[in-house]
Amino acid sequence: MSTHEPKNYHCPICSLIKGEESEHNRLSDIVYEDHQTLAFISPKWWPNNPGHVMVVTKEHYENLYLLSHTTVQRIALTVQRLALAIKEVYQCDGISTRQHNEPAGNQDLWHFHTHIFPRYHDDRLYVLHEQARYVAAEDREPYAQKLRAYFASHTS
Amino acid sequence: MSTHEPKNYHCPICSLIKGEESEHNRLSDIVYEDHQTLAFISPKWWPNNPGHVMVVTKEHYENLYLLSHTTVQRIALTVQRLALAIKEVYQCDGISTRQHNEPAGNQDLWHFHTHIFPRYHDDRLYVLHEQARYVAAEDREPYAQKLRAYFASHTS
Repeated sequence: MSTHEPKNYHCPICSLIKGEESEHNRLSDIVYEDHQTLAFISPKWWPNNPGHVMVVTKEHYENLYLLSHTTVQRIALTVQRLALAIKEVYQCDGISTRQHNEPAGNQDLWHFHTHIFPRYHDDRLYVLHEQARYVAAEDREPYAQKLRAYFASHTS
Repeated sequence: MSTHEPKNYHCPICSLIKGEESEHNRLSDIVYEDHQTLAFISPKWWPNNPGHVMVVTKEHYENLYLLSHTTVQRIALTVQRLALAIKEVYQCDGISTRQHNEPAGNQDLWHFHTHIFPRYHDDRLYVLHEQARYVAAEDREPYAQKLRAYFASHTS
């Protein structure tokens, strides 16, 4: 099976799950957690879609090819849950999700993740693909606060 | 909840599920089917990603916001199944998936669907977003044949 993770990869997602912060991920980015999945504000943003969310498996798997059926199902439920949350608290005009496997598929982080984007009219998310940039933790915090407040008041 | 489907929408996906062909969808596009989901070759292609697949719910729901948990889980399993199939039979360099909700989220077909793309090095899928075009049924057929042959030999 196609694998691209370097040997001795120090996985920033596994670090976050263990409670360790790193250059691009802070504990304050985390907005949702259950037994198998975690959701947090992405450190990399596209120009017109601030505060998008990444949903990850708590166990380390490189990509979609390797997930068990149970894990696939749990991720999907968390993605839907976050889509509904983002729609409500960001008051965005739409939601889109995407999931990348292998470098040719735009994957550059070797831990399975799905992106959930707040969408706005004429945001040109795809055409501006090469304009993504890392943002400061302080910029992420207001988005994380809103989503945490939503989940605090919406127990499943 | 945000809905954009016109009144009296004649849904091409529901037609396909009922066995009726339409301008852009032929029965020969169908590559996989189970109780709750259907997968077929998309009639609209991006320049460097021919033969991508759409996975749909058999029941009509406009978008992700409206799916039951069970349906979310079934769709996710079919998406993974198709990702593995496309990777094997197209011999592509990667796979990416995406799912659009509401016009601002790039949705233009009012029946829930997830796109599964074969990816190739430097295919520029996102930057070339506005260059998608409809293709003839004959162009779709070789891709459908390959995927049907795969599923004929991989019973779950």
